[in-house]
Amino acid sequence: MKGSGVIALPDPPALTFRASPAPASAQNTVSSKIPHHFCRVINAEKSEFNEDQAACCQISVRRREPGLEEDEEWLILCSTQFLTGHYWALFDGHGGPDAAIIASNYLHYCIKQKLEEIVGGITEAQPPMHLSGRCVCDSDPQFVEEKHIHAADLVVGALENAFQECDEVIGQEMEATNQSGGCTALAALYFQGKLYVANAGDSRAILVLKDSIVPMSSEFTPESERQRIQHLAFVFPKLLDGEFTRFEFPRRLKGDDVGHKVLYRDYFMEGWGYKTVEKADLKYPLVHGHGKQARLLGTLAVSRGLGDHQLKVIDTNIEVKPFLSCIPKVNVFDFALHDIKEDDVLIMATDGLWDVLCNDEVAHVVRSFLAENRTDPQRFLELAKCLVCRARGKKRGHQWMLDDSHEASYDDISVFVIPLHNREED
Amino acid sequence: MKGSGVIALPDPPALTFRASPAPASAQNTVSSKIPHHFCRVINAEKSEFNEDQAACCQISVRRREPGLEEDEEWLILCSTQFLTGHYWALFDGHGGPDAAIIASNYLHYCIKQKLEEIVGGITEAQPPMHLSGRCVCDSDPQFVEEKHIHAADLVVGALENAFQECDEVIGQEMEATNQSGGCTALAALYFQGKLYVANAGDSRAILVLKDSIVPMSSEFTPESERQRIQHLAFVFPKLLDGEFTRFEFPRRLKGDDVGHKVLYRDYFMEGWGYKTVEKADLKYPLVHGHGKQARLLGTLAVSRGLGDHQLKVIDTNIEVKPFLSCIPKVNVFDFALHDIKEDDVLIMATDGLWDVLCNDEVAHVVRSFLAENRTDPQRFLELAKCLVCRARGKKRGHQWMLDDSHEASYDDISVFVIPLHNREED
Repeated sequence: MKGSGVIALPDPPALTFRASPAPASAQNTVSSKIPHHFCRVINAEKSEFNEDQAACCQISVRRREPGLEEDEEWLILCSTQFLTGHYWALFDGHGGPDAAIIASNYLHYCIKQKLEEIVGGITEAQPPMHLSGRCVCDSDPQFVEEKHIHAADLVVGALENAFQECDEVIGQEMEATNQSGGCTALAALYFQGKLYVANAGDSRAILVLKDSIVPMSSEFTPESERQRIQHLAFVFPKLLDGEFTRFEFPRRLKGDDVGHKVLYRDYFMEGWGYKTVEKADLKYPLVHGHGKQARLLGTLAVSRGLGDHQLKVIDTNIEVKPFLSCIPKVNVFDFALHDIKEDDVLIMATDGLWDVLCNDEVAHVVRSFLAENRTDPQRFLELAKCLVCRARGKKRGHQWMLDDSHEASYDDISVFVIPLHNREED
Repeated sequence: MKGSGVIALPDPPALTFRASPAPASAQNTVSSKIPHHFCRVINAEKSEFNEDQAACCQISVRRREPGLEEDEEWLILCSTQFLTGHYWALFDGHGGPDAAIIASNYLHYCIKQKLEEIVGGITEAQPPMHLSGRCVCDSDPQFVEEKHIHAADLVVGALENAFQECDEVIGQEMEATNQSGGCTALAALYFQGKLYVANAGDSRAILVLKDSIVPMSSEFTPESERQRIQHLAFVFPKLLDGEFTRFEFPRRLKGDDVGHKVLYRDYFMEGWGYKTVEKADLKYPLVHGHGKQARLLGTLAVSRGLGDHQLKVIDTNIEVKPFLSCIPKVNVFDFALHDIKEDDVLIMATDGLWDVLCNDEVAHVVRSFLAENRTDPQRFLELAKCLVCRARGKKRGHQWMLDDSHEASYDDISVFVIPLHNREED
């Protein structure tokens, strides 16, 4: 992803950091005041276009009294009580920054809206079967109990629905304005004592705690979602328009392979088998390549995200969107179950960081930096800078290199560092 | 599942154990001699029909020289070298024992066949891109390496393909003989120093080691596979023929619920939301109920297994098979990475055991029984009996009760106890 630089660092000789508006949208009841939480998005300045976007804001959800029916709208509007959440998000655009920009402006609004729709259900210890609170069936609370439905499940559902709604908004907006492209979306929501991390794409969030690292997301790529993607092509072969093969092979096949048995996988296989190669297997594979080179339909490096409604495989009529999912996987961290220490933080970053630094390396930087900078009031901000600079590397001749002389990240790099201690003071 | 009793215990006053042939099929090159491995399948005698089946045997896989082409069949047949595997399986029939019987007779044969098809690939340290061993492209070994393909992945693929083939055989056989029904399948294969456990259904296998319990399978039920099942109905709504609703609700909805917002989940949701109830939502849900009461299309309690090719929802034309999967999830345990102790065992059992005893309880019984019976040469056999008797409980009046006065299992109960120590001696 490419980053919109929100800070102006002092320019080192060979570098410039672009300064741009802070990633916060204050609209309606959404406030941008989040004291003591820091975000830094920095463009590594190696790519021509800047495709990363970030957002952070406070989300205020208007409470409604349980028992209030839908049509008593005036009573709901009169309410002055709010539940407050904090929101941070990163969007890594591809095919231009348009989708990422719309997502950074709308997703928090969709989340606020979806939370307001279910707020009557989360103010009780256990969500009621009926949102209105009325009990049609005496054993309703037992049915809800039996299914283990808690308030947190409603927030998860709201996030899932918000991503879907945001994707629809992006589709409409981009069709109306003739824009194109898509983006990944990684959103964190601190709400009612819990941290929710919703991810669709290849950004990543981890908690760096005193004694452990807690992964809060996993990546959705053509490789990690191979079986879902291949299954869709099995069910709807027309989606491949005769141009691609559903099967996975370790490499692209050649004429010489025809008639011989080679390694392959179909949609139902986690293991590998041998298949006699037919001419049709010489087509380009639906999912192909490995690691950062893996592609869906030879086109996209991610399998979930927002946008891409109009995207077609180059020189064909094959649509990519049917294979993409806009639904995030949501992970929940309950602060009530953990003793949070002063230097515990949530790190959110786009693939520009994670491509060159693993979780352990990031955690090592985080812990040593914070231990060495106990008193600096800007230390979380400086840590974000430090992580970005690590991944960006140093210019040696025409190349950017890491300290360990591996190649540095040539992608945009965006990092949020969010301290978890003293949350209630915020 | 219901059990075919392979041992005749001394009859306690109120009980009888049916004696029936040992669960081993000796056909072709499949030998039934597995010294020091024990299996016990016991019918709890509470149900009218016996639907459990078991199988265990040695599987001999004929080696073929790498580089041997397909058409050199005579050379392959001349080979006298075999790789030997050990196989144990449990099948829990529903709608009659027919599918379970066919599966217990055929699955090991399908596995043997699929292993022979890939044997050229597993005799090398790394499977070759071409089964023949010839190298079409110089970097073929690198491509295979990059995809992390190991011999174990070929065995996993062979098991996945074997289940699928066995399911086809059952479909043909049952259509030809006008039989009906289906079964779950849990198969363990000890092969080349690794234990493979393939599961399709709600049986379970765990390793009880000295200091830990290692789950080797997970259950596939309408609840655990809700999203896959709902997604299929979303993609092909005709499969529900207007008789079922795709949505999940905590309870069956009533006329009184129409127009109100109630808790629901759609295929893309792990969380819950509220949905305004329409008349169509009053239909019976595709996935309904909780725990042992959960049903797919109001009909089946499992979502994976073999057979059921002709099964229709009662009084309708709705087929259940499209929603079922015959593909197992395969878990691998590498003995080279573990120090196996004398009393370490693999426990395989049908849901009759696990419905009333959790992993921890079973492990406790296993460890204390084996510690107290160090010298009995029949101790693994006696342990299998002991586990079955625990789950069957004792008759008190008209009820069968566990020791802790919970209700005992009314299902058939089948248990394999397989010692893991001294494997090479076998």
